[in-house]
Amino acid sequence: MRDYTLSEIADSIGGSIIGDASIKITGIASLSAAQTGQICFANGAKYLKLLSSSNASAFVLTANDARQTSKPVIVVDDPYQYFAKLSAFLNPPVLPEAGIAQSAIVHATTSVPESCAIGEQVVIGEGVSLGENVIIKSGTVIETGTSIGDNTVIEPNVTIKHHVDIGAYCHIFSGSVIGAEGFGYAESNAGEWSKIPQIGKVVIHDHVDIGANTTIDRGALDDTVIETGVKLDNQIQIAHNCHIGAHTVMAACVGIAGSAIIGKHCKIGGAAMILGHLTIADKVTISPGSMITRSISKAGTYTALMPFQPHKEWLSTAAQLRNIDGLSAKIKQLEKTVKALKKN
Amino acid sequence: MRDYTLSEIADSIGGSIIGDASIKITGIASLSAAQTGQICFANGAKYLKLLSSSNASAFVLTANDARQTSKPVIVVDDPYQYFAKLSAFLNPPVLPEAGIAQSAIVHATTSVPESCAIGEQVVIGEGVSLGENVIIKSGTVIETGTSIGDNTVIEPNVTIKHHVDIGAYCHIFSGSVIGAEGFGYAESNAGEWSKIPQIGKVVIHDHVDIGANTTIDRGALDDTVIETGVKLDNQIQIAHNCHIGAHTVMAACVGIAGSAIIGKHCKIGGAAMILGHLTIADKVTISPGSMITRSISKAGTYTALMPFQPHKEWLSTAAQLRNIDGLSAKIKQLEKTVKALKKN
Amino acid sequence: MRDYTLSEIADSIGGSIIGDASIKITGIASLSAAQTGQICFANGAKYLKLLSSSNASAFVLTANDARQTSKPVIVVDDPYQYFAKLSAFLNPPVLPEAGIAQSAIVHATTSVPESCAIGEQVVIGEGVSLGENVIIKSGTVIETGTSIGDNTVIEPNVTIKHHVDIGAYCHIFSGSVIGAEGFGYAESNAGEWSKIPQIGKVVIHDHVDIGANTTIDRGALDDTVIETGVKLDNQIQIAHNCHIGAHTVMAACVGIAGSAIIGKHCKIGGAAMILGHLTIADKVTISPGSMITRSISKAGTYTALMPFQPHKEWLSTAAQLRNIDGLSAKIKQLEKTVKALKKN
Repeated sequence: MRDYTLSEIADSIGGSIIGDASIKITGIASLSAAQTGQICFANGAKYLKLLSSSNASAFVLTANDARQTSKPVIVVDDPYQYFAKLSAFLNPPVLPEAGIAQSAIVHATTSVPESCAIGEQVVIGEGVSLGENVIIKSGTVIETGTSIGDNTVIEPNVTIKHHVDIGAYCHIFSGSVIGAEGFGYAESNAGEWSKIPQIGKVVIHDHVDIGANTTIDRGALDDTVIETGVKLDNQIQIAHNCHIGAHTVMAACVGIAGSAIIGKHCKIGGAAMILGHLTIADKVTISPGSMITRSISKAGTYTALMPFQPHKEWLSTAAQLRNIDGLSAKIKQLEKTVKALKKN
Repeated sequence: MRDYTLSEIADSIGGSIIGDASIKITGIASLSAAQTGQICFANGAKYLKLLSSSNASAFVLTANDARQTSKPVIVVDDPYQYFAKLSAFLNPPVLPEAGIAQSAIVHATTSVPESCAIGEQVVIGEGVSLGENVIIKSGTVIETGTSIGDNTVIEPNVTIKHHVDIGAYCHIFSGSVIGAEGFGYAESNAGEWSKIPQIGKVVIHDHVDIGANTTIDRGALDDTVIETGVKLDNQIQIAHNCHIGAHTVMAACVGIAGSAIIGKHCKIGGAAMILGHLTIADKVTISPGSMITRSISKAGTYTALMPFQPHKEWLSTAAQLRNIDGLSAKIKQLEKTVKALKKN
Repeated sequence: MRDYTLSEIADSIGGSIIGDASIKITGIASLSAAQTGQICFANGAKYLKLLSSSNASAFVLTANDARQTSKPVIVVDDPYQYFAKLSAFLNPPVLPEAGIAQSAIVHATTSVPESCAIGEQVVIGEGVSLGENVIIKSGTVIETGTSIGDNTVIEPNVTIKHHVDIGAYCHIFSGSVIGAEGFGYAESNAGEWSKIPQIGKVVIHDHVDIGANTTIDRGALDDTVIETGVKLDNQIQIAHNCHIGAHTVMAACVGIAGSAIIGKHCKIGGAAMILGHLTIADKVTISPGSMITRSISKAGTYTALMPFQPHKEWLSTAAQLRNIDGLSAKIKQLEKTVKALKKN
């Protein structure tokens, strides 16, 4: 990693400097782990009180917070947003060299642009369309008829099934499976299940990230669609025919059942679940671990969580809860009796 | 895909025709996406009202519903079941050619029937037994001593560990791991954990589907068993020594803990969890997201879910819930006081 | 598998023998499946009553329980702990032969000790450091700069990203992904997300097991750390910057959100979730399926679960629960009225 002076940084990505603009920055770090030469950001009281004990050589702070240190500061409006930009500036991705690894298998009907990097043991099927600068890392399998847009990166050991459309600037992490058959069966009168062919596609727009071991199934008849800028964490399951609106983010372990339509700019907390055939409005936030069982038509935050307790207390809560109908009946009875007493 | 007239379709898979039986069908589609030449099914009021605006050339309907359109109709008793058959008829699976890809590694002690198709970068270990027409797609690893029945399809990047028995007509999706070691440890007095060898197998009967990134662990001493016709969706976890009864279906993200015995024809909703060492009767339905903590001896539907609410309302619900013991105590106190009042 | 007499077993791993010490043991089994020549353990009333009907040739029992059979017994203090040792003794792991498979790709800058076994289609990147006796099975990808300690086993189709440190005697199961980028984004004012480079590592100490399809993300700035002796089951998600204390165990499907600090010797039940930035004390047990939303500073067992009910009863419970605020208000009103009545 090369060094940059504070002024080189500010010239490149903005911010104004208080203090010595010529000091050299070698990297970014957390307040507690930082060493001489490194720069940190702080935002909020919890972190500001670590400024004085940090060994960092400079900080990214708001104008207001900049007074709390005598070290050089890059002053910005939003330290966290700036930190994201700064980290990207100081840590440019290490890209593999363009070319096709010798052990990769590329079907003769697929042409690979010279700007692409295809890793070891990769398998690319018939008639796959690859944009410029696509990176496909070792062990990934891409089946026939799939298309991948410019600058998209696919990490090792990913599986992309046939006829999946992936946009530009996407990032797909290891172990994810895109385009497996949706879970669609018809039940016979004897209670046996026959598979319904899943003939839809998965269509992924630009700037979408898909986390490790996440699965996105292809549509039954129509397509499963992930709009621009969606970010999915690890181990998420998107069932067939879902439609995820632009710039929606989902934390790990979320499950979205079939044909659910999720709005734009939603934030789905970790391990939350959304049932099938529901419609969720734009800008809805779902709390972690909450199961959503009906459509939501209004932006806002929604929650469904049992509060946790020491186990003994919970045993009692659970017993009362199982008998909440009884509590309610007792209240009704009391109301009746009290009303009669009052009358007398 | 080739065209079929309505009468060719009815001759092949049944149904009686109202209207022009000579029109050509090019494919199946949803009511809203269908174009000229395509056929749709409809079932239930929600979908029947889309008939008039659909561009489909024909429909699959019950005799009763057939009156609602002037277009040609295939009349059947159960449109959904027929649709499954029709879609399979119109969309036969595209099978890879038989043969062993050049980059596949097959151990010398394993013989591959000529009808099998072994994909690129596949690894097949020592003494693996393969039936006729088995398809193993790119990047899959099958370890020593495993057997796979006729016509089973294994998708890319699957891992099947040693000594796993898989039946005929199974379909195993990408990223799944069959036969990893069960989670069995003995705790020392110092609180350290030593692994107990997992020497059971995984035994999978015929017509079983296993979804993407699903994991099924091998037994500790006895085997983990998945009976005929079971269909598992994506990201399901089946722990060691479970026994899943025939024709049971599980939606995505379900977890079944060790040694649970699940009956036949059960339906386990997405993200439901079943604790270990429980026995679940035949024909039990578990609602999505419900944790089952005791055995269930009677068919029926079982549920455990916090209802979701706008976050502010939930905060209040959670506070009351944490204090439900207090509510109950107040009711008891009131009952006592009211009883005393009544006496006077 | 070779035979051992009871006395050979006791000489090797301890225990005292009652009855014929010369009988030959061919293996271990469960009480109900055992056949002549096999040995079983029993612990607790539920299993002891199966002793008389078991076909096993010998048992592992406490001195007290040994009276309940006339067959030979190995007497020990803790039958389960002994059984773990016995099973490991009778079922030593079958290790692949050392060497590098011909289809494996090892980067020229990585040197592989002669004692290591590198499987088919494995890919090992630049400057990877491998200890003695490391086993890496087929289809696994290990990226540049990663280090793996002595005697660690990595199962097929694992992905280990660049610059991950793995200790000695670890066991990493198929489909797991170690070192993918943490889920860190900064939101723009327009609600779009830009990735924050994840420049921390994953550091895994010795004797750690990581289950199938489990994901452990690398840190944002600092490292994600898994301490000695931690055992993780399948499909667990450990987010960036988590710190998991020594000898903690987690059952399948657990999710730990970013920057959570989990103590030593904790037991996290299946599908439990722990929110980000929390601190959990040593020796905390979390019940299965429980969502932990606040730090826990005291050892003990904690639970958050809706009890399950037949669906119809649950409908009523859910309705009452949604209206628990109303119940509480009614109680308050009653208390007021009754107080007034008492006064008169």
